[in-house]
This record gives sequence, C-alpha cells and structure tokens, in this order.
Amino acid sequence: MKEAIITEVRKQQPLIHHLTNQVVMNFSANGLLSFGASPVMAKAEEEAAEMAAHADGLLINIGTLTASDLKAMIFAGRTANQKGIPVVLDPVGVAATSFRRNAVEQLLAEVQPTAIKGNAGEMAHLVGLPWETKGVDSIGGDAEHIAAQVARTYETTAIVTGAKDIICTGNRNSENNTGHPLLAKITGAGCLLGSILTACLTTSHPIQQQALAATEFYGTAAEYAAEISGTDRPGTFMPLFIDALHKHPADFHIRRNTNE
Amino acid sequence: MKEAIITEVRKQQPLIHHLTNQVVMNFSANGLLSFGASPVMAKAEEEAAEMAAHADGLLINIGTLTASDLKAMIFAGRTANQKGIPVVLDPVGVAATSFRRNAVEQLLAEVQPTAIKGNAGEMAHLVGLPWETKGVDSIGGDAEHIAAQVARTYETTAIVTGAKDIICTGNRNSENNTGHPLLAKITGAGCLLGSILTACLTTSHPIQQQALAATEFYGTAAEYAAEISGTDRPGTFMPLFIDALHKHPADFHIRRNTNE
Amino acid sequence: MKEAIITEVRKQQPLIHHLTNQVVMNFSANGLLSFGASPVMAKAEEEAAEMAAHADGLLINIGTLTASDLKAMIFAGRTANQKGIPVVLDPVGVAATSFRRNAVEQLLAEVQPTAIKGNAGEMAHLVGLPWETKGVDSIGGDAEHIAAQVARTYETTAIVTGAKDIICTGNRNSENNTGHPLLAKITGAGCLLGSILTACLTTSHPIQQQALAATEFYGTAAEYAAEISGTDRPGTFMPLFIDALHKHPADFHIRRNTNE
Repeated sequence: MKEAIITEVRKQQPLIHHLTNQVVMNFSANGLLSFGASPVMAKAEEEAAEMAAHADGLLINIGTLTASDLKAMIFAGRTANQKGIPVVLDPVGVAATSFRRNAVEQLLAEVQPTAIKGNAGEMAHLVGLPWETKGVDSIGGDAEHIAAQVARTYETTAIVTGAKDIICTGNRNSENNTGHPLLAKITGAGCLLGSILTACLTTSHPIQQQALAATEFYGTAAEYAAEISGTDRPGTFMPLFIDALHKHPADFHIRRNTNE
Repeated sequence: MKEAIITEVRKQQPLIHHLTNQVVMNFSANGLLSFGASPVMAKAEEEAAEMAAHADGLLINIGTLTASDLKAMIFAGRTANQKGIPVVLDPVGVAATSFRRNAVEQLLAEVQPTAIKGNAGEMAHLVGLPWETKGVDSIGGDAEHIAAQVARTYETTAIVTGAKDIICTGNRNSENNTGHPLLAKITGAGCLLGSILTACLTTSHPIQQQALAATEFYGTAAEYAAEISGTDRPGTFMPLFIDALHKHPADFHIRRNTNE
Repeated sequence: MKEAIITEVRKQQPLIHHLTNQVVMNFSANGLLSFGASPVMAKAEEEAAEMAAHADGLLINIGTLTASDLKAMIFAGRTANQKGIPVVLDPVGVAATSFRRNAVEQLLAEVQPTAIKGNAGEMAHLVGLPWETKGVDSIGGDAEHIAAQVARTYETTAIVTGAKDIICTGNRNSENNTGHPLLAKITGAGCLLGSILTACLTTSHPIQQQALAATEFYGTAAEYAAEISGTDRPGTFMPLFIDALHKHPADFHIRRNTNE
C-alpha cells in the first residue's frame, strides 16, 4: 500500500500550498518537486486563502513566523478546512518564545489540522507535558505517550519525529525506523518531511498508511543518499537526497538487497 | 552576435537589482553570479528606488509578493524608467489570485517594462486571452499569438517561455528551441532566466538578439548540465547547471560536436 | 590554539541567533550546521529578543533589511549585550543607501558589537574614510588603517575582509591570508563567515585568536574545496565547501602536505 501512495502522488502531482519559514523555502520546494508534487508558497495575507482554494493540501510551518504570516496561516487554514483538503501543522520551536506559543494556540483554535508533526519537545509542549532532552535512548517510551496525548487533545493524527518516528491516529500507533543522522546536519530536513507528508495525505488511503508511507520513504531516501555521500559530507548529501526523493521505492530495496 | 552579448555581460558585470520572490533568491543570486553579472536584492520600500539608481538593470518578479514588496517594485521601477535602464517583469502566477492580478495591473500602469517574460498561461492572462494547458503540442501556435498581443498591448518585448520560447518585439518574432525538461523539476528555473535576461538587456545590442542570446544560452546550459547529471537526478542537476552558466558558449558547441 | 577553538565550538554546539538577509539564510544555516554550531533565525520583532536570551551568540547582518528587521535587531542586540553573549555586526552594503546608513547608525547607538566585520568599502564608510576600489593590490595598506579606525571608534574588534583579512582588536593587528577567489563567485560567502565568526567568539579564548581561527579555517576550507571542484565550477564548489566546513583542521594540513 505504501508504494501505491507514492505512485498516486506522482500521478496526481498535488498542489501543496506552503506557509513555511524563509530558511527552508527553496529546499522544501525542490524536495517536493523532486518527490513528484507541486509546491506553491503565497504568503501574503491578501492571497493566502485564495491560493489555498486552488490547492490540494496545505502545510503550515511556524519557523521565522511574523504577525502577518500568522494571519495568512489562519486565512488559508480556514479555507482548507472548508474545502476539506488536508492541513499539516509543523509547530517549529513552539516552546522557545511566547510569540510562537500564542501563535500556535491561536492557530489550533481557528484551524483543524489533519496532522500535527514535530519533534518530541515541540509536541510535548502542545499537551503540557514536561520534556527534557536526555539522549536518544530515553525518547522512545515518552514519544508514544506524547503522540497519543496530542492525537487525543487535538483530534488529529500526531507524528512525533526522532530517531524513531511515532505515528498516532488516536486509534492506532505505528512507528518508522528509517532515517539517517545526516538529516540533523542539514537545515530543513524536518520541514521538508512536512511537505512530503502533506502530499501523501492528499491520496485516497487510510491516514495511518499515508503517514507511514511518507516517513518511511523519506527516511529510506536519506539512508540511500547517505550511502552514496558518506556520513561526513553534509554538503554533498543534500543534492543526493533531493535525487533520492525522485526515485521509486523499489530502487531503494534493490540497492539494499544488493549490498546486504 | 549572441556570443558577443554573453561576453559583454561578463566584461561589464552589470549590477542587476532584484525584487524577486523569497523561494528563489539564493538560486537566482548564485546563477547570475556564475553567469558573470552581479545581483543585489534590496526589497525594503525605503531603499528599493535608491538601489535601483545604482543598478544597471531591474528584475521584478511577483512570486511571494506582499503589499510592501509591491510598493518597492513601483518605486524601483519608476527610478529605472527615469534612469533608462532595462526593466524585466516576470508576472509569476498572475492568474492565480486577485491580489496578483491587481498588483500586475498597478505595476503595468506605473512602470514601463522593457520586456515581459512568463509562461503561456501568465502571458495570456495579461491580454485577456483564454488559456488551457492541453499538453505540450498545442502550445506552439497559441504562444506566438499571445506574445504578439502582449508586445503590442504593453509596447514591450514579450517572451513566452515553454518547450519552445517565443520572443516578440512587436516587429519581429523569433524562437528558441534549447532547454531541458529538468528545468521544470527544479524551483526557480524561470525566475533565474529572468535574471539572465535582464543582464543581457544591459548590453549594446538589438533587443531581439539580447533575448535570443539569453534564452538560447540558458537552455543550452541546461542541456549541457543534464547530459552530465542524467535526466532523473534533479538535485545533482542544480549545481551542474550553475556550473554550466559559468561556461563560454563555445564550450557547449565543442561538447555537442564531440558527442553527436 | 586555533584548533582548540574549532574543537570547542564542536563540543559546545553554541546556538547562534541570526538576524540575517533572506538571500543567504539557507546557505548560512547549512554552513554553520556543518561547521558544528546550531543556527536559529527568528526575525519577528515580537520574539527576536526572547530568542536571543536562549542563544550563545548573535549575528546581525543588514542585507535585505526592512524596518521591522531593524527593530528585531535592536531588541535582540540589547538582550545579547545584557546577557553578555557575543554580537557580530555585518554592515552589508551600508554605503549603498541612506536607509542602510541610518539603520547602522541606529544599531551602533543602541547595541555594542563584540566585532564588526565587512569589506573595506563597508568598513571605511563606518569611519568616514574615503574608499575606492582600485584593484586588489591597493587594498592591503588601506585596510589596516580602516580596521584600526573602526576598532577605536566603536571600541570593538574590526575585521576587514578581502584578499587578505585584517583583524584589529584595538591593541593588536593580525592578518589572514587563506581564502579562494571562488568565494566571490557564490552568494553569501561573507555572510556565512559572519556565522562562523560568531560561533568562534562563544569560546573561551582571546578574541584575536578567535577571529583568526574563524577566518583561517574558513579560508582554508575554501582552498580545500576549490582544489576538489576546480576553479571554474561555482555550483559544484558550494556543496564541497559545506563539506569542508565539517572537517577537522588537521585534514586540510594533511592534504596540503601530500600535495605540495
């Protein structure tokens, strides 16, 4: 089913409206294009809703948020909800400042996200759970509890990203173990996953499968690119990762079978 | 004459002021630098006109437009017109929202563009012609009519980009058949062509030749880069394309002669 | 001592808050991540100060400055000064427009920079010295005088970048001769040096050594990358340069010894 989801994205080429941060716009657009969907990024409050009305999915990412961006996000989010297209919220750095905390509170009051995706610290903040980074090993157990709380509180699908990604639809949990540490050495890896996820949510499959397809494909593409670049070359990794997002999932399996 | 235009750009290193969209700023700056001109991108309404007064050419691109950007574009455009330096307008996505439609209407009322460059849908919108994407084959004929209408209506040079680029100065038509499908798999390929075009318009040659030199060189550089990257690696293609923009046109011919 | 500075950055992974220009955000973030520090770029005036309170260093770069950006810079700069973390000012293009001239004047009245870094023209402007580009050879002598004047006037460390970088702490001068002409063929090379410099200023070493470590490492990384890419491929150079920033300084020496 996961390959069917990727294939459907590439056939439909859904238009994904991005209200995202300025650091990653170019990388997100190129990554999503390579994956097979179409990005658009119209951030003016005057047109964000109208562009959302043309789109097949909406990504809201609050990195480099401004007051004007927030208005655009709410306008576009409302339109997306009315139209019934998927909305993904990525609450980047939400715990860092009161401006972001208030913005996300307002967003969640005005817009119903289809999925919320963030790292454990961001997601824990959304449900008032304490969070401390204690090293990779301690994340596993906590992340499942955090995901369940976010899913229940916001009646949404929660995706807690990390060394292991936890996906919780409320009823079911699943996890993704693909990925590569180089993703933490480049900027915008989490943000681009939000774009890929939104594209997968436009397909005609159960959301648990859609979220799993997005995270598994993304992580496997990173593993594939890292195998070519080597683990100590983040600059070389980036274009190879964009290349990998263009591939058919079967290309990764073939490589794995050959090498292992 | 086309090589003379490229050579003149590289000798003069014209300063091209960009009021362009946030998605492509970095790619446009690097592409133009590699080509041999100098980019500057001062978007505050407080300084856009003063920066235009230092520049040799001005590019106005309305992707990710805001109300403040529009003011800056008008201020800079007026200064450019007064100074007599070339102004290129790229009406990205003009048909998509009323905000963009109104913005372009206002721009065209206040600023006289030396050239307008866009895809067939954008250019058709500017002259009220219907446009539907019906597959690549049907674009040819329509695009020539659209180009002629835009050139006549706005007393400008019209460049309709596509599988075939149509250049219409009002008096004459010409076309460019270079290019590569990978340009549609990366973000900002059309936007960077606007930068290269503006640089070529600063030279001392007829505009028909300038526009032809820009589009032909650009498309040939893409063909050259795609031959090295392969057609299914958009991430790898990007740096190779930036490399190719640094080359002398004769390097492409040599390669072609060798391989064919 | 220089290697100890690089090693300390990588161990501490300082959080460097950037109020920087939109053209280079992605490149600066990726370059700093590869080097071993952590970038954050929160530019809203509502949160810039609060983010600075979490940070270990602050970079202020005025390219693509807006009135709102300027407020954010002043708020964040005051917080950084109160907290006692290093502040680096990069007055990009300060001489070009009255908006930038006034902005830098206001910044310098409100915020005490630990270091100011710019090319000879920008730095000369800050102390009212005439400056004309007269070719590379004439820069040397003037740059030392300019650096001394900036250091004395603003009670700061002045770094005048060029074919030779001059570092003046007020008491002492030193110079860096590493670097590569390809850095002038990519956008944001000076801006990213500002990020690397800010990261080095967070370490526990004399500032003269910190600034020397930053400029020497940066220039040597560029030489290393250019040796691999070749000098006529700016697109290929960029990812290789990001790779090089990830390396241990000793890797460069080994390569040099092997090749020379």
